[in-house]
Amino acid sequence: MEATSEAPAPQKLTSKGQATRARILEHAAELIYTHGVHATNNEQLRRAAGISGSQLNHYFPTKESLVLAVIEWQAERVLTFHRSERFTHFDSLGSLRDWADHYIAYERSHQAGCSLGSLAAEIIKTDLDVRTELANAFQQWRNIFRDGLERMQRLGRLSAEADPTRLAHLLLSAFQGGMLLAQVAGDIAPLKDALQAAIDHVRTFAVSGEAGGLVPGRAG
Amino acid sequence: MEATSEAPAPQKLTSKGQATRARILEHAAELIYTHGVHATNNEQLRRAAGISGSQLNHYFPTKESLVLAVIEWQAERVLTFHRSERFTHFDSLGSLRDWADHYIAYERSHQAGCSLGSLAAEIIKTDLDVRTELANAFQQWRNIFRDGLERMQRLGRLSAEADPTRLAHLLLSAFQGGMLLAQVAGDIAPLKDALQAAIDHVRTFAVSGEAGGLVPGRAG
Repeated sequence: MEATSEAPAPQKLTSKGQATRARILEHAAELIYTHGVHATNNEQLRRAAGISGSQLNHYFPTKESLVLAVIEWQAERVLTFHRSERFTHFDSLGSLRDWADHYIAYERSHQAGCSLGSLAAEIIKTDLDVRTELANAFQQWRNIFRDGLERMQRLGRLSAEADPTRLAHLLLSAFQGGMLLAQVAGDIAPLKDALQAAIDHVRTFAVSGEAGGLVPGRAG
Repeated sequence: MEATSEAPAPQKLTSKGQATRARILEHAAELIYTHGVHATNNEQLRRAAGISGSQLNHYFPTKESLVLAVIEWQAERVLTFHRSERFTHFDSLGSLRDWADHYIAYERSHQAGCSLGSLAAEIIKTDLDVRTELANAFQQWRNIFRDGLERMQRLGRLSAEADPTRLAHLLLSAFQGGMLLAQVAGDIAPLKDALQAAIDHVRTFAVSGEAGGLVPGRAG
């Protein structure tokens, strides 16, 4: 790590520079997602992105600056996906099920896990100064679920007894833990079970006849 | 990795050799738990365990052989802990709560995460040939919860509607995911919420008046 060599701020780059930086990042994210941070080296990245060593060094002078940018890139993708219209801000049990179904059907779930979570787990114990970035990303992710559950309460779909923060932590933990267990087992079953059970639990707070037209929960 | 240099089988060592091997392992496990696999090198380990390079090389000729042994060591510890009398084979909701309380109060939970899970997450994408070992350990761990839930059903404490495998995957996923989120946040709250919500969900299947003398579940 060379603390003195700072990466240029993306917004100060020319549009051609921004495109090169984006191409490097895309390849770095893919290499890291597939092989992990430690097995990804400059030579692989240069070859994959079709750039020279001096270009790579210009945009990302240290591994830390590259890893930080990949975290931002993956966080942006995962948060944008969760905020997409498809999930209607998670205002129903149906949208939670749609979300779970997406990852259960995603073939890379049990091969490489969560793009952001597996990266976080790989580097959280290292000296890389990335904790603030990670904490911020996961907090925003958690808040998407929490806000959705609060919206369900306001819409009368979920009982006021439900604790949106606790349930949001259950959903995100079941997702992250299920992804790890699925990777280790080489089998999607642990993720599928964990997500279905976590959503079943949210459903126990469903108000009868509501919850996006699904069968009311056991408590309904 | 030198595939030809195999580590001596522990049972073929003299008792002094077994003691040295155990001391190396204990220090390796601690270093890896604190700093991660990649930041742990031979020199740190030699110094911590007070051994020479040739001794280390004798017991663990490759990093792979060392990491494999640390996985076995951590798995043995975690499985033994979960099988201890304290948790009475997880035959009640009370024992699940006791288990959760233990990890919520454990100060290293949000510092270094799960001793086995954080190691698995760090190396699952590497070329180290450790997947079978990890899969086996996590399957046994999952089975401890599943068997406990089945026992609760036989004892009439849990409804026959409950799916023990699904609930076991929820408990272990909430634990692993909650540990990761707690580490990232530097705060135990995500783990606490995830475990409490997962156990709340098990409780919705509790048969009224049973379940270890606790208040019956919402469905009871």
